[in-house]
Amino acid sequence: MSLLSKIHTPSDLKALTREQLDQVAEEIRARVIEVTSHNGGHIGPNLGVVELTMALHRVFDSPSDRFVFDVSHQGYVHKLLTGRNGEKFDQIRQTDGLSGFLCRSESPHDSFGAGHAGTALSAALGMAAARDWKKEDNHVVAVLGDAAFTCGITMEALNNIAETTSRLVIILNDNEWSIAKNVGALARYFNEIITNPVYNRIDRGLGSFLKKVPGGASVLEYGKRWKRETKDFIVGSNLFEAYGVRYIGPIDGHDLDLVTKHLEFAKNEQQPIILHLLTKKGKGYEPAMASPEKFHGLGPFDKETGKAPPKKKDTPPNYQDVFGKCLLKYARQDSRIVGITAAMPPGTGLSFLREELPGQFYDVGIAEEHAVLFAAGMATDGLRPVVAIYSTFLQRAYDPIIHDVCLQNLPVTFCMDRAGLSPNDGPTHHGLFDIAYLRTVPNTIVMQPRNEDELADMLWTCLHVDGPTFIRYPRGSATGIEKKAEPVLLPVGKAEVVREGSNIQFWALGPWVAEAEDIARELEAESGASIGVVNARFAKPLDTELLLSQAGKADLIVTFEDHVIQGGFGSAVLECINDHEIRTPVLRFGYPDRFVDHGSSTADIRSSAGLDHQSIISSIRSRASLPESKQQRTSATVDQT
Amino acid sequence: MSLLSKIHTPSDLKALTREQLDQVAEEIRARVIEVTSHNGGHIGPNLGVVELTMALHRVFDSPSDRFVFDVSHQGYVHKLLTGRNGEKFDQIRQTDGLSGFLCRSESPHDSFGAGHAGTALSAALGMAAARDWKKEDNHVVAVLGDAAFTCGITMEALNNIAETTSRLVIILNDNEWSIAKNVGALARYFNEIITNPVYNRIDRGLGSFLKKVPGGASVLEYGKRWKRETKDFIVGSNLFEAYGVRYIGPIDGHDLDLVTKHLEFAKNEQQPIILHLLTKKGKGYEPAMASPEKFHGLGPFDKETGKAPPKKKDTPPNYQDVFGKCLLKYARQDSRIVGITAAMPPGTGLSFLREELPGQFYDVGIAEEHAVLFAAGMATDGLRPVVAIYSTFLQRAYDPIIHDVCLQNLPVTFCMDRAGLSPNDGPTHHGLFDIAYLRTVPNTIVMQPRNEDELADMLWTCLHVDGPTFIRYPRGSATGIEKKAEPVLLPVGKAEVVREGSNIQFWALGPWVAEAEDIARELEAESGASIGVVNARFAKPLDTELLLSQAGKADLIVTFEDHVIQGGFGSAVLECINDHEIRTPVLRFGYPDRFVDHGSSTADIRSSAGLDHQSIISSIRSRASLPESKQQRTSATVDQT
Repeated sequence: MSLLSKIHTPSDLKALTREQLDQVAEEIRARVIEVTSHNGGHIGPNLGVVELTMALHRVFDSPSDRFVFDVSHQGYVHKLLTGRNGEKFDQIRQTDGLSGFLCRSESPHDSFGAGHAGTALSAALGMAAARDWKKEDNHVVAVLGDAAFTCGITMEALNNIAETTSRLVIILNDNEWSIAKNVGALARYFNEIITNPVYNRIDRGLGSFLKKVPGGASVLEYGKRWKRETKDFIVGSNLFEAYGVRYIGPIDGHDLDLVTKHLEFAKNEQQPIILHLLTKKGKGYEPAMASPEKFHGLGPFDKETGKAPPKKKDTPPNYQDVFGKCLLKYARQDSRIVGITAAMPPGTGLSFLREELPGQFYDVGIAEEHAVLFAAGMATDGLRPVVAIYSTFLQRAYDPIIHDVCLQNLPVTFCMDRAGLSPNDGPTHHGLFDIAYLRTVPNTIVMQPRNEDELADMLWTCLHVDGPTFIRYPRGSATGIEKKAEPVLLPVGKAEVVREGSNIQFWALGPWVAEAEDIARELEAESGASIGVVNARFAKPLDTELLLSQAGKADLIVTFEDHVIQGGFGSAVLECINDHEIRTPVLRFGYPDRFVDHGSSTADIRSSAGLDHQSIISSIRSRASLPESKQQRTSATVDQT
Repeated sequence: MSLLSKIHTPSDLKALTREQLDQVAEEIRARVIEVTSHNGGHIGPNLGVVELTMALHRVFDSPSDRFVFDVSHQGYVHKLLTGRNGEKFDQIRQTDGLSGFLCRSESPHDSFGAGHAGTALSAALGMAAARDWKKEDNHVVAVLGDAAFTCGITMEALNNIAETTSRLVIILNDNEWSIAKNVGALARYFNEIITNPVYNRIDRGLGSFLKKVPGGASVLEYGKRWKRETKDFIVGSNLFEAYGVRYIGPIDGHDLDLVTKHLEFAKNEQQPIILHLLTKKGKGYEPAMASPEKFHGLGPFDKETGKAPPKKKDTPPNYQDVFGKCLLKYARQDSRIVGITAAMPPGTGLSFLREELPGQFYDVGIAEEHAVLFAAGMATDGLRPVVAIYSTFLQRAYDPIIHDVCLQNLPVTFCMDRAGLSPNDGPTHHGLFDIAYLRTVPNTIVMQPRNEDELADMLWTCLHVDGPTFIRYPRGSATGIEKKAEPVLLPVGKAEVVREGSNIQFWALGPWVAEAEDIARELEAESGASIGVVNARFAKPLDTELLLSQAGKADLIVTFEDHVIQGGFGSAVLECINDHEIRTPVLRFGYPDRFVDHGSSTADIRSSAGLDHQSIISSIRSRASLPESKQQRTSATVDQT
C-alpha cells in the first residue's frame, strides 16, 4: 500500500513513523522517475533533494514557515508532499498539468516562484525582513544549489543578510553541478572544504557525536552541545563568516536523520546560518547518477534504461546544435572567435567548441552580466566573442548590453536560443521580450533566421559586422533543410521576398515565415486576394526600402513573430510605415499582453493565444474585409474602405 | 611654473623627479577643485585617487597596459595625465567638453568606458583573457572602490579570475564609501581588516620594511623579500583567497612611494593579486573631507567655502525630494510601506525616510537586482515596498522585474528618478529606455506625472494598486506648483485633457505636457489649426477610450516623451490607434536612435536632437500640411490628403 498517496499535507508526513519515512522516500523517487520518464523534466535535481525536502517538511511548518527554492526545478518532491500528488502531477509540464517550477498561484505552499537561478536568497531575505518588521515569528528557509553562488544576485543578498536579520536558514545543496559541472573559484573552494583531510576527520567525529545524541534530547541542549564540541573544528567557514553568516557542514544530505537534526538546530539559532549539504544529483536512479549533465533536465526517456526514445529517421537537428557546430567551424578558421556560456554548454550548443577548442571556450557560471562584460572586455582587445545565452536569461544582462556593449559599439555577437516559446517550462523560460528590449537600444542589429542554413549565414554575417549583433532562434528542431557547404554574408537590413503578391503583404520572422507561406496559400485560395510573403530576417534595421514600396501599394501589411505584440517586430514595421506617412494598416500577430503558461507543445500554446492558422486567417479576413470564399468575390482586389 | 601643463603623455610624468611629483599632485588637486567648482562633478572620488593614478602611470605603460576604472567618475586625474588638460577639461561635463567619465572615443588611454558601478573587474578579466589567448604580455589593472564589491557583477567576475588568468592586478580603492556610506557585511569585513590590532602591528612592520628597500633593489628581489617577510602576517586575506586571488594590504593610498612599490610588486606577480589601498574621499580639500556624501558628486560650488551658490528665491524643489517627503508622509501612516535604495539615499530622496523611519528604510548597496528581489520577497509577506532606483540603473534589474515581480504580479512600486536626460553625466546616465522595456512586460502599470502634485497623487495611487507599478520622473527641479494638502487616487489608465482642440491632438508625458501646451498655443496662433493637449499620465495602460475618440476625429496625433522614439509611449499610442482600425497618423517626438551625448543643459541636448520648439513646430507643420502663418490659410481645417 502506498504511503505517499496518503500524504495530503505536511502534517500527514509528520505523523509517520521513522520506518515509514524510508518507504516514503522510495515511493517519491519512484513517482518522480515514472512521471519524468513520460513527461521529461528535472529528474536529477529532484532525486537529489528527497531527504532534504522531507526533513524540511518535518522540521518546519509550511506554509506559515516559508521555503524558497532557488530555480525551483527541484520542487517536485515539495509538490508531492503538499497535496499535489494527483492527476495534475501526472501531467506536470503538460497542458493543464502542474508547472515544472514552484508557482504561487498553484499552492499556498509555494512561497515564491522561480525558474531563473540565484533569486532565492534575496527573496527569502525579503520575507525574513518583513517578518522581523512585523514582529512575527515564522521561519524562512532558502534552498540553494552550489551553482547559485556563481550568480551575483546571491552574493548581493549574502552581503545584506547580517545587517538585515538574525534569523534565516540557508541550505547550500552542494552537488557540484549547476547544469553542467560547476565552475569557478568558489566551486573549488567548496570542494576543498569537502576534501580537506581536517574536515574528513571532523566529519567522522561529528557523525559519531550525532549518533550519541539521544532521540529525546531537547533541541536546545543538542544545539549547545553541538556548538561546544564542534566550535573549533569547523573548517572552510571563513568565506561565509566574512559575511557574518554562521557556517555548518558539510553533512551528508541523504542521511534523513542527520539533516533533520541539523535543521532543528538551525531553526533555533538566533543568527543567520548556512547548512552545507552534500547531495548527489539523480540519487537512487543509476542512469541519472551516471550522467548528471544529461539527467539534469531532459525529455521523455525509457525508465528501465534511461535512454531517450530513438530519434525518428530524418529528424532535423536542434537549432542549438546547428549553432554550436557552425561556431566551431568558424572558430577553427579564426582564432579571434571565442564562445562564452553562462553554465549551459550543452543547452547552448557550445559543448562542441568546449570539446575541440577549449582555449576558445569560456563557461563563466550562472553569471550572465559578467559573461557580457567579459565579452565586451575581450572585444576591446580584438577578439570576436560570441555570447550564447537563452533569450530569457539574457534579460539578466540588459544593462551591460546597453551600457557596455552597445554604447561602446563593440563587436559582440549574442546568440539567443529559446527565443519564442519554451513550452514545457513556461513563462519563466519563454523568450518573448527580446526584440522589444533590444531594438530600442542604439547600435543593435537584431535578426532571426527562417531555417538552419540561414542561421549559419547570420552567424557568419555577425562575425563580420563591426558592432553588436543579436541572433534569436527557437528551441528545438530546425527545419531539416540542407545547409550550403559554406555560409554567405547576408546584406544587413535586407529582407527576402519568398512569395510574390500585391494586395496583402505578410512580413514574418523566423519559423513564422513557413507558417506565413502556408497561411498565404490557404487564404489566397479561398479569398482570391493576392498575398506576398517576406522573410524579414532583420527586426532591426528593417528593410525600409522594400517595406515602404510594398506598403505604398498594398491594402494591408501583416506581421508574424514569436514575441509579445507590444513593441516587437510588428511595432517596428508599423512605426516605419507611419513615420513615412503611409496609412496602410498593419495587422500584427504575436503573444498578447499576459504571461503565457506552460503547455505540452508550441501548437497547444499558440492555439490558446489565438495564433493557430484558423484564428489567424479569420482575423486577417476580417481586417482586410475578405470574403469567406472566393465565390463570394467579384474581383481579386480587397475592399479598400 | 606649472608642471602639470607640461605633461602631455604618461612619459612626461615618468621623466619627472621625485620632488616634482609632489608638486604635480598638488597641481592636479588644484585643477580638479577649480574645474569642478565651476562645472560640478565628482570631486571627492578624484581627490582620493591622485597618488594612485600617478603611481599607475609611472609603473605601467598606458595605453598598451590597460587601466579599467570602475564607474570611471574618478578618471579626471587620468585624463589630466593623458593629454587632456586643456580647454576641453575646462569644459568637462559641458556641451562640447570632455565627458565626466572615461570614454573610448575620447582617448586611446580610456580602455573601457563606464558610468555604472561594478563593471570593471569583468571587463578587465576579458582583456586579460584576450591577452593570454593572444600570448601578448601587456598588463591589465582594474581599479575598484570598496562599494563595487556590494555589486553582484564584481563577485561574478571574482569567481572567474583564478580559472581564467594568472595575471591581473586589482586595486581595491577603499574609502568606505559608495556614494553614501558603504553598507553590508563586506564593508564591515574590510573595516575589520583595517582596525584589526594584528594588522596594525604588521602595517608598521611593513612600513619600516619598505623603507629599508633600497631604491635600486630589483623589483624581483624586492618581491621575494616582501613575500618572505610578510607571508605569514597578512590578515583578513581569506575572503579573496577563497577566490584564488592573492591579497595584499591594506596600505596608505596617499603614500605615493608605497603605492608605487606595491604596484611594481604586483606587476611582476604571476598570480592575480588584489592590492587594498586606503584612501580618503576629497583628500586635500577640507570641505570635501568634511562632507564626503555631499562632495561625492555635486553641482558648482564656491571654491573657498565649498558651499553651493545660494538658491534663487522660489526655486522649486527637486523631484527626488518631493518623492522622498511624500514617501515619508505615507510611510508614517502605513507601516507596511518600506523604501529600498541601492546605495543612493540622498540621490533618490530616501534619506528623509532613513532619518525619521529607519525601520522602514533599506540601503542594500549597489545591488539593484537584489533590491528588486528583496522587495518582491517582502511583498509576498504583506509589505508595500517602494524601490527607488534611477531609470538607467533599473536596467540592472530587468530580469527580476519580469521574472519575480511582474510574473507573480506582486505589489512593488518602482520610482525611477532621472527618467529622461541627465545632462552633465551623459549617455550612461540618461534614462531613455524604460517605457519601452517596461510596457512590453505583462502586468506593468507605467506612469509619469506632469508636476510634483501629480507625483504625490501617483505615488499614493501606486500604493493602492495590487500589482507592479512604475513612476518615472525627471532629474532636477519640479515645477513649483503648490501641492494639495492630501493626495488623491488617480484612476488607473485615465488621461487628462488639459487643452481642448479638434484638428490635432497632442499627447504628452511628464514635463512635455507644459511644453506641448506652449507649442499648441504658438502653433494654433500662427496656423489657425485647433490643437488639443492631453496629459497622458499613463504610458500603460493607455486611456484607449479618450485616444480613440480623439483619433477618430483628428487629422493628426502628436506624441511627446523624454524617451527614445522606438518602442516608447508614442509607439504605444500608434499601436493602439492602428489596432483599432483608425488610420490617423501619429507624429512621435522623442530621442532618435543614437546614444545621446552629455551636454550643459536639457535645452542644449534637446536642441541637438531636434526637440527644440522651433524644430518641433516645423515638423508638425510639415506633417499636418499647415501653412506657415494664419494668413495663408482660408480655413482652420488642416489638409486631409
